[in-house]
Order: sequence, then C-alpha cells, then structure tokens
Amino acid sequence: MGSMDADAGSHVDVLIIGAGPAGLMMANWMSRCGVKTRIVDKRGTKIFNGQADGLQCRTLEIFDSFSFGHRAWLESNHMLEICLWNPDPKTGVLIRGDRIPDTIPNISRFQQVVLHQGRIERFFLDAIRENSIKTGCNGKVGSRDAEIKVEHGVLPTSFEFDESVAEDEDAYPITIQLRHLTEEEATPPQKATMANGQGIQDGIFRSNLSSDDTEDSINLSNSIAEKAGRTEAVKAKYMLGADGARSWVRQQLGFQLEGESTDYIWGVLDIIPITDFPDIRMRCAIHSESSGSVMVIPRENKLVRLYIQLTTTNVDDGSGGKKFDRSTITPETIIASAQRIMQPYKIEYRYLDWWTAYQIGQRVGNSFSLKERVFLGGDNCHTHSPKAGQGMNVSMQDAYNLGWKVASVVKGHAKRPILKTYQSERRRIAQDLIEFDHRFSRLFSGRPAKDVMDEEGISMDVFKDAFEKGNMFASGIAVDYGASIIVAKGGSGKDQGDGTDVLGDEQLRVESSEGLATGLEVGKRMPSFKVLNQADARPWHFQELLKSTGSWRVVVFAGNIRDPAQKKRLDTLGDKLGSEGSFLRWCTPTEARYDSVIELLSCHSAPRQETTIFDFPEVFRPWDEREGWDYGKIHVDDESYHEGHGQAYKNYGIDPTRGCSVILRPDQYISWIGEMDDYESMNSFFQGFMLDQRARANAKPAVANGASKKELFAGTQAGTNGLRVDVHGGDSGEAVSAGDDAARGVGAM
Amino acid sequence: MGSMDADAGSHVDVLIIGAGPAGLMMANWMSRCGVKTRIVDKRGTKIFNGQADGLQCRTLEIFDSFSFGHRAWLESNHMLEICLWNPDPKTGVLIRGDRIPDTIPNISRFQQVVLHQGRIERFFLDAIRENSIKTGCNGKVGSRDAEIKVEHGVLPTSFEFDESVAEDEDAYPITIQLRHLTEEEATPPQKATMANGQGIQDGIFRSNLSSDDTEDSINLSNSIAEKAGRTEAVKAKYMLGADGARSWVRQQLGFQLEGESTDYIWGVLDIIPITDFPDIRMRCAIHSESSGSVMVIPRENKLVRLYIQLTTTNVDDGSGGKKFDRSTITPETIIASAQRIMQPYKIEYRYLDWWTAYQIGQRVGNSFSLKERVFLGGDNCHTHSPKAGQGMNVSMQDAYNLGWKVASVVKGHAKRPILKTYQSERRRIAQDLIEFDHRFSRLFSGRPAKDVMDEEGISMDVFKDAFEKGNMFASGIAVDYGASIIVAKGGSGKDQGDGTDVLGDEQLRVESSEGLATGLEVGKRMPSFKVLNQADARPWHFQELLKSTGSWRVVVFAGNIRDPAQKKRLDTLGDKLGSEGSFLRWCTPTEARYDSVIELLSCHSAPRQETTIFDFPEVFRPWDEREGWDYGKIHVDDESYHEGHGQAYKNYGIDPTRGCSVILRPDQYISWIGEMDDYESMNSFFQGFMLDQRARANAKPAVANGASKKELFAGTQAGTNGLRVDVHGGDSGEAVSAGDDAARGVGAM
Repeated sequence: MGSMDADAGSHVDVLIIGAGPAGLMMANWMSRCGVKTRIVDKRGTKIFNGQADGLQCRTLEIFDSFSFGHRAWLESNHMLEICLWNPDPKTGVLIRGDRIPDTIPNISRFQQVVLHQGRIERFFLDAIRENSIKTGCNGKVGSRDAEIKVEHGVLPTSFEFDESVAEDEDAYPITIQLRHLTEEEATPPQKATMANGQGIQDGIFRSNLSSDDTEDSINLSNSIAEKAGRTEAVKAKYMLGADGARSWVRQQLGFQLEGESTDYIWGVLDIIPITDFPDIRMRCAIHSESSGSVMVIPRENKLVRLYIQLTTTNVDDGSGGKKFDRSTITPETIIASAQRIMQPYKIEYRYLDWWTAYQIGQRVGNSFSLKERVFLGGDNCHTHSPKAGQGMNVSMQDAYNLGWKVASVVKGHAKRPILKTYQSERRRIAQDLIEFDHRFSRLFSGRPAKDVMDEEGISMDVFKDAFEKGNMFASGIAVDYGASIIVAKGGSGKDQGDGTDVLGDEQLRVESSEGLATGLEVGKRMPSFKVLNQADARPWHFQELLKSTGSWRVVVFAGNIRDPAQKKRLDTLGDKLGSEGSFLRWCTPTEARYDSVIELLSCHSAPRQETTIFDFPEVFRPWDEREGWDYGKIHVDDESYHEGHGQAYKNYGIDPTRGCSVILRPDQYISWIGEMDDYESMNSFFQGFMLDQRARANAKPAVANGASKKELFAGTQAGTNGLRVDVHGGDSGEAVSAGDDAARGVGAM
Repeated sequence: MGSMDADAGSHVDVLIIGAGPAGLMMANWMSRCGVKTRIVDKRGTKIFNGQADGLQCRTLEIFDSFSFGHRAWLESNHMLEICLWNPDPKTGVLIRGDRIPDTIPNISRFQQVVLHQGRIERFFLDAIRENSIKTGCNGKVGSRDAEIKVEHGVLPTSFEFDESVAEDEDAYPITIQLRHLTEEEATPPQKATMANGQGIQDGIFRSNLSSDDTEDSINLSNSIAEKAGRTEAVKAKYMLGADGARSWVRQQLGFQLEGESTDYIWGVLDIIPITDFPDIRMRCAIHSESSGSVMVIPRENKLVRLYIQLTTTNVDDGSGGKKFDRSTITPETIIASAQRIMQPYKIEYRYLDWWTAYQIGQRVGNSFSLKERVFLGGDNCHTHSPKAGQGMNVSMQDAYNLGWKVASVVKGHAKRPILKTYQSERRRIAQDLIEFDHRFSRLFSGRPAKDVMDEEGISMDVFKDAFEKGNMFASGIAVDYGASIIVAKGGSGKDQGDGTDVLGDEQLRVESSEGLATGLEVGKRMPSFKVLNQADARPWHFQELLKSTGSWRVVVFAGNIRDPAQKKRLDTLGDKLGSEGSFLRWCTPTEARYDSVIELLSCHSAPRQETTIFDFPEVFRPWDEREGWDYGKIHVDDESYHEGHGQAYKNYGIDPTRGCSVILRPDQYISWIGEMDDYESMNSFFQGFMLDQRARANAKPAVANGASKKELFAGTQAGTNGLRVDVHGGDSGEAVSAGDDAARGVGAM
C-alpha cells in the first residue's frame, strides 16, 4: 500500500477533524508514534482566551508524559483551597463556613490548576511540531516536511465509508471531501461557545496574543489565502471527529446525543476583580440566602472567573416550560447578580477578558465509533456543565485513550479488537461524568437550607461532603477501566464498561494477582512515588519513567536481589525474557531494538550502594554498539540525598521478599499484576491482542527481513567480562581499534 | 542627554565586549532593567558544544531568579554522588573507597548539574530577547527594535577614555571603534580553548545544533554579511570587558593577570563511553597507584567528560623546567592514559564529542575596574583549573554582581560609589577561588599515599575531607560579601574584601542585629524555605519571590500578628512606610509605583486560616486602579496541603513573638537585619547610597513632574471600607459606573 501514500496527503493513516484539545491530543499521539496524519479545522485560527480552563491533576500527569507538563505548571494558577461561603444561620450575613483542600492530598504529584485553552493548544502545537519532525510522520525523519501542521480554514463537506473493507487492516475505507475556506469564511465573529453548545453569540474577543502565538498567526493567514476555494478528496484508514458539540462528523454517522437540559442558567465572567472579598484568590462556592450562587475560579494573569447563577432570566416559553431569554443578558446584568449574591462584600472590575452565558445540559453520545474506523471524542459525544472544570480534561483524555490504540493498529503491532475498548472505556467515563455533573450542578443551583427542617434547601454539610467526594472524581485519578483484553481483571467487561463486548477469547484471558501489590489497582493509572536510578542515584518520580512513547511496559519489582533465592528468580526471568522466543522479541518488528514495543523496567529494593546494574541480567540493561549499556532502565527503592525516601515498595504494597511484575499500557494504566517471574502469564496476556511480528515478517518480506536472524540483542553472548579493548594509539586514524570480540568491535570514530 | 542617544547605537549606556556567559549575564541584567545596551563578540557564532559545563546550585538559583532555571534543570544531567576510587592498600587493585553526596544536602533547593555552555548561552539569548522587548531597552516597549541582539563578528579596534568626566553621571567617557568582520574572519577554526587560555588548537567541532539554535545560526550569517568591513565609533557610559583569557579589553587597560602555571598536564575527552566501570554515571575521582588520576563527570545526552592526567607529556624545556609538548597529545593518547588508570575496568568509545588538553595555571587580575567605568569580568580576570566546575559559574556571577549596580547608577537610583563594591566583592572571590583551586588541583594531581608513612602521597582521608569542604565552596552558597555601604555588618570592609575602600560615610553606617535571625548571615545570599501566599495558600520557595528585577527588597517578618502588641508594631511601621516622606517614596521616581525601586514583602507567622491580607496595613498590599489589591506580597509560615511545612521562622532563626526586618540586595544577598519596626535604620541604610528622587525631580523637571503631587499611592485614603460600587446596569455602555469615591472610580471598560 506504500505506493498509494506517495501523493502527499491524499492518503493518510489518520485524519482528524477539529483542532481543539481533543483533536490536538490525537495529533500529538500520532506525532509521537510517527503515524501519517492530517488534522483540519474550519476555524481560521486557534483559541486565544476564554473557553475551558481547569486542568485536573491527571491531565497534568498526561502532559508531563509528553514532556510539557512543566509549561502548564509554570504558567497556570494553582488552586489550593476551596472556601465554602453561605449565610450565617443566625444573622443571614455571608460567612466562610468551611475550607477544604482543592486537590485531595497525596493522590498525585500535581494539583489542579487553571490555564486558558489557548495556552494548552500552544503546548500541543509545539509538541506536535517537534515530535513529528523527529519521528518523520509525513516525510523524512528530521525534515520539516515531516511536520504535522494543523490546517485551518478547512471544512469537510462529504463523507463516504466503504464498510466492506472495514476489517482489512491495509484498506482506506474512509473518503472525505475537504474544502479550503477563504479567510473571511474561516473567521466568523468570535463566539462565546460553552461546552454544551448553547452559548449565546456575544462575548468579547481581544487579541491578547502571547508572543509565541503571534508568528503562527501571520503564517496561518498566508497559508489560508494560498489554498482558498480549493477542494480535495482525502482517503484515510482511521478518522477522529473532534469537532465539538455541533459536530459535523456525528451528523454524518447519524449518532445522537442523549440526555436533557435543565432550567439553570449561568453567566460567566473572566475579569480582574476589584474587591474586598478576602477569598477572591481561592476557589469559592458562595451561596446567598435567596439571590443564587457564585462560583469563584481564580486564574492566571490576575484574572478571576465567576460562574454566576442568573435568577431573573428564565421566562415562560408559552407552553408551560421555561426558556432562556438571551437578549437580557449582558456583562452588566451578570456582575449585578454577583454583587447581590456576594454582599456585603463589594466587587467590580475595569478589565473584562471574556464572558458568556449558558444553560446546563447533560448529554452522552449513543455510540462513539463506526466499525472502529471512525471515532467521536470530546464535546461531540458528551456535554455538561463547565463548572466542575471537567470538559477539556475528559475530551483530551478521550483522545489520550484512543491515540495509542490507533497507532499500534496502524503500525501493525496490535490487533484491531483493542479498538473496541475505546468506546467501552470512554463512553462509560462520559456516563459517569454526566451523573457526577447532574449531582454537582443541582447542589450549586439550589439554595442553602435554612435549617435542618428545610428539605428543599441544600444543607452545607451535604454540600461539603459532595465537594470532597467530587474532588476525587474531578481529579481524574479515580478512572478505573473495566476488564477487557487489555485489562486483566475479573468480572464482567460489559458491566464495567458501557456494555460493549471487549473481553476477547476466554481461553487467553489472564488473571491478575492484585494481592501482590496492594497499593495498585488493575484498571487504574500507575500511581507515582520516587525511586532512584541505580546507575547515578538520581531520584525520579516513577511516572517520569512512563513517558507516552507508545510503548507497553513490563515493570519487574525484583525485591531484594541480595537475597540469593530472589536473585535466582530474577536470573531465570531474565533468561526467558532474553530468549529468542520471548514476547519482547515476537511483539517487536525484527529490525527494531527488542524493547521498542514493550519496554522493560525494573525497580529493586536491595540497598543501592550494595548493588550495581551488573547484578541484573543483560536484558534489563539493553546494549548498544555505539552507546554501551543503557543506564536508564534499572531503579531502586532507597533514600535520596536531597528528596527523601519515596518508599515505593511500601506505597505500592509490594513485599520486598517476593516482589511482583506489573504490565502497564502505553497510557500508564495497569493491565496486569502477577508473580515477579510469571513469564508465562505475561506472554499469554500479550498473545491476546498483539500480532506476532515473526509471522508478519514471513508473510510479507520486508526490506530488512534478514535482520530477524540477528541475535536477540547484540552483545548477549559477550557478557560484561567479554568486553575487550586493545589500544593501538599510534596507527591509523582510529582512536581505539576492535578487539577480538567482533560482535562488539569498535570501529573508526 | 536624551538627544545624543537619538543616533541608533552610537551612544549607549552600556557596551559589552564578549558574548560568553559573563557578557550574556550582563546583557540579561540590562534587558531586565531596560538599559540601552549593545553587546558584541568577535566570534561568528555562539558556542555549540564542549567548553565549560558544570552549574553550581547557586548558579541555578540565579537562573531561576531570571525565570529560566527550569530549562537548565530539565535538560541537564544531575550529579548526586561522588565516588572515590583508589588502589586497595592490600592488593593494589582499584576499588571504590568511599562515597559522598555531590551537593551538600539542604544548602539549596537545587543541586549541582552539568549542561554544556551552548545551551546556557541559548537560555540567555532567549531571555534577553524577551526581556528587552518587554522593557524597551533600545527602542519602544513591546517593539522588536527594542531588542538587545548579540552582534557577532564585531571586533573592537581602539579604546579611548576621557578621565575628566569619569564622575559625571551623564557623560559618555568611553569611545570604542568597532570593526565588522567578514564571515571568514569571524569564523576561525574551532579552537579547544580552556579556561586558562592555554589550550591547544585542535579538538573537533561538530555541528550538533539544537533545533532552537538552527534558525539563529542562519540569521546570524546574513547579518554578518550585511555589515562586513564597516567600522563605527560607539560612545558608552559604562563598559564590561567579558572577552576571555586573552582579553583585548584587559590589554587596553594595561591590567595584568598575576599568578603562575603548574607542571600538571591534563587531557579532556567528551565521549559516550563503552565500559564495565560501574560508576561511570557518577562523578568519580579515580587515583591509580602510579599512572595518575581520572576525574569522571557524567553529562547530558549520554556523554561523559573525562579529565585525565597525562603523565608522559612533560618534556624538558632545555633550561631545567618542564614544557608542555602539544604535538604528542591526541584523543588516542588521552584515552590510553584513562585505560591505564582505570584498569582492570575497560573503557572505550565510538563517539567523541569534543576534546582538548591544558596545563593548570592560576591567575587573578590586579584590578577589575578603570574608574568604575570600565569593568573586567569572567576569564579575563581569573583563570584556573576547570576541574572543580567553577569557571563559568564564577564568571557569570561576576556579571550578576555587577549588572544591577550599573543599572541602578545608569537609571539614577543609586550613587556611583556602590560600583566600587564590584571589585571589592568579586576580586576577593577570585582570590579565594584561586586558593581553592590550588589545593584542589594538587590533591588531584598527586599520587595516592601507599600507607600512613608515605608523606609524599595523598591520603584518601585527606582527599575526602578536602572534597567535602570543597563542595561547600564549589556550591557557590558560601559566598560572603564583606562590609560595605551596601552590606551592613561589622569589621573592616578592606579586610573582608580585596582591600578596596567600600565603607563610605562612617556617619551613615548602619548596624545589623544578626541575633534576630540566627539562620541568616549578612553578606550571604538569602536561604530559601517554603512559605505560603496568604491570599491563595500556594506554597512558594522564598527565593522564588526574589526574582532579579533590579529591585531592592525590605522583607518584614512580622511574626504573630494575632498578638495585639505585634500587630501594633506592624501598624506603626506601616504608617511610616506609607507616609509621604518614606524611603519607599524618596528612593522611587515620582511617576513610578512606590514599590518599584524597593519592593516590600512580608511573611507572618500567625495561622493562615485566621488571617487575611486585610490584617496588614495597605502599604503591604499595593493598590492599582485597574487591578485592585496586589495579592502577591504577603506570605505566611504555615503548613501547605501538598508540600509540607517550610518552617521558615525556625529555619531562619526568627522569634515569632518578635519578628525582624531584612533588607535584601537586588541579587538576593542580605544587606541588613534589624528590628521589625526599625524604620529609622532602614532609612539610614538607603541614605548611604540611594539618590533622593524628589531632589532629582526638582533639579531636572521631568515630563511627569506633576505626578509628585499625587498621593503616595492611590487609594490610601479610601481604605477597604471605602470601596463603593454602584451599579447602573441599564445605562450607557459601562458595565459598572463610578461610585462616589472618585479616586477609585471605575470608568468604561
């Protein structure tokens, strides 16, 4: 099929419609994995202000796995505390009734922060550029042609799907017509669109570009002008529709959003407040006695976002229901509501950055995928209130869940059925989200209870309790994917997901032994504690070792390897993993390094200073002829000089005298936990969904087919003691000439 | 004098010769402070590999104060442990004799790291660009014309100095002729130049450009071609020569480097090692029995630097001395020496990044300044062994010490005598450095003692002890500036410095009460512990509040402000600081915000949750008509939700029932410690060297002179309770109209 790709852009592995956070996350994955990709957006430009802005701690973990977590962390406003304000039961005057931490302590190495969507899109764009040039997505590695560029001002106009080839992994069943808009078409008046698509068309657009946005903005305008008016057909193997609440892709598929709207109407103001309210830099929930409520979200650059209940804007729709009367809502009416709710405190502003108003609606898509070829993600398959700061997070996490799966199928590493887990896992999350939002919004929209007898009012105790529970959900850390071919746990995959069948062949189903690591849960993301690199004693948060590269990981918690019995188990496991028939080898294309599809990490618990990497079998420290041993794979649970003791074994609940092994998905979720040396279960697990690359190599002779005859990894035979260096300082231009170990010989520099 | 500046570039406040780390640090300060500056370098390009690479923890603190510390921290290799290897006394076989932490725990929030000079120059270049556009150094604020650009391929050819106007603060006593080289002239063969300028001309240059260097490199080449062959005259108020060991500026001034060379000859290799030596990713000192020693410095990108003693390359110079025979030194001979020293371990390489060889010389300039108008900094006034990783650090810190002083004199904030402290402080540091290097290098170059009777050999106990002591010096944290007009401590300013008289008027000399903060030392940099922002509970390392903006700082440790007596002292101090005649006001140009020359910070010790910023006098939370209160100035020593308790009062040794105040220089060094409410001493301290801006405003009517009649700060009279907001939602386009407090009225958005 390679030759069909030759015509630049007419055939792509992945086509992404929509370049908001979900679409960009998908493109980012593709850029990491080197998958041929186009991403188009009908908007003429990226977002610069307003819109969604809360970042969960799980989202920051994900950003960090793509190496730009620090950018969000540095630029964002950190929210530490939630203050609950309500009328004093005796006097009726607003008082701070309680405080709770905004992020539950110790659930993540990050805490929830706020940063506007425009900056997040910038981080993605920078990462996509850098990655795609590095991996050579759409051209030669290292060349600028390889760059995946967001194509702005491009509108999809027709969709065809050839169902007959849906299961042919080499086919391009999707055909899309794209029309390149003119600049005027691509630049509609800035709209105040909220997550549920029911925003009203006003809001204020200000060109407060960051310096790193300015240049792009100019280039963009030129590139739009160049192609304006053209249409083209694109054929794709896979497609993601990430085109927002009024999704064109969803319409083409004929899928529905199911759910309903509420009567609650809220206004949103992003202002620099001038106020004597003492908690204006805290996240606050303020309930007035009878004027409604305000939620305060302090932001970056001195801004504060206010979500304000608008009590006077519901009008009768003439048929007994209530209607959202847009015409009466202005920033003036919204701030006036805030002022009523927050009295006796004063609040005003001289700078307004953005504003909108919305009615809460809660809906979930009835399907997330067409034949596991076309997927929906983000706002086009779930809409809800923005107040819990979930929208952008859940949308990005949809694509974070999908991206590596699509990449591994496109690259021929995994079988197509893993794609079913996208709907199973993410539609379930969307359902949970809507249920959460339903409860959360009601609490906000209700009035405070006057006393314990006031059943219609919301008791502050109930409110606080809901907030604390909600914080666990809102952190993103609670996500617990159900049993499937890639999550080896008991129970019904249908019940634990959205009803999709994702368990696969019952015969290959593998069991986890969760008791071996009582601090870990199969289906949840790997928690992080500090461990030390064995070779250089540097402390790393364990998650920092789990970068989103597209690789699966086997983590061997080898325990106390100074214990001879434990050392023997490790050596035996090393033999199996290092053997020719190892799953490390059969899951990996013959020409690639043996750990490039499944990375092997280990963490032991013997004293660091009594151990070296040479106490581990060679398979745990990959050898490279130019670079020697890889020092980055073996870690130890010991005390650091400057950052304390991570107590990883204790926190993970692993017995150092026994250890365990853990299989992690490319997205850091735990697939399997078992005995440290249970090679056989690991092998079975991967057999459930990975393709045998030896078979593939035989079936389709590749250019580098001869490479399959290579040793499992160069240097295996030689061993550490085999390393020989003979110096011939005087002769020729070579610094060091080859010794008698030809396999590892050192040539000219 | 403004009109003389009109001709772009012919008159500058500051001219910098040399764009290595010292020159770039100076330009960086100027860019921060908005000072008109040019920086030229005869090299056609920046450095891309090799050269100096160790970064002290103090240097990282400084980088962080310029907001790019994280870039160095993320990209660098972190060194955690030093391993000392020496022959086993019984068998003679090389063993790991001991381990010590590379950075002494708890002296800094950073630890020593390694990153090559090219990246550090990149961080400076990015910061200079961003800052200078923001502050409007050479043009309009926000315009690209304002950018301070390094001018490469520009050679100074003559120097004139008009001593008669040296003390006239408005004069341009310096005239320099600059010649713009052709590209060939500006691109000499890459030289392997070490800190002492005695490198030999070989080494290998590889164009391993980082992606963010590539574009600059192209633009550079164009800009050189444009001006090639031109000469021009530049007049400057101040000049920094940062032009390296063979300094042209030093020659013009007729200053000398004083000191001597040793016989020790060392080779340096930057390689990716292939080895079975278990500590290759640790910093190691390896002493062989009779083949000399190797120092191992693990670096970024899998590189390791080896400093290798070359025992066979000293030849008789014909007059009884030894000579450095360059011709026999090649990478091959250097690695061969390493192999001899490190046996029985094997080491070889296939990738060599850079190499050189040098003879240790230790020299200090006899003067660092010509009439406090022309300054030397960096390698042109101190040369020494590179092995302790000090060179680049001390050079950058020279300019870090000088920059803010020059900026504050150029801007008319401070009097010229503060410039004398540069030589006093930095020449003393250079002398200490050379003494340290002398001891340190001897220990390295000597052979290990065979037994306790072997007096010529170096005992490993002595070596370890020296290493541990050396680590404190090498961290940069130990720097302790002597008494001067800007360091209020007892004793002789001459003895504590390099002999320069820097005490100023004895009558204005102020005493510190160091007993009020037993964890702080006047003359040393402010140590850092975590405190919480009062308004939003976010934890900050105290140093993060001390960004290098050019501002002095008064830090009021107010203690337990819930104690009425302490609160009263705070209020009284607030009245004085907030008064019309306050030093905050007379030190500040009349048109600027009152805290823009001396920032007022506070940190109290009452429980955070029982306090708000409104418990502090208004002067501690500056008011802005557009942005309301400033929430960034008041902090508290309390427990955080996620990052523990900084215990700042305990660690600083401050009694919470009494508190204290501390004056910090713009470079974070402690100037004065006294009673919390000792306003009079603070005022006297600033009288010693700050210029009275009211007097200046009267003497030279400025455009905004009328502004001096403004209130000390807008809003003082109004007070918190005075804040009024009247809403007129319906009328006009104004969101919120002015209330009856006209001084704080809210106009149209």
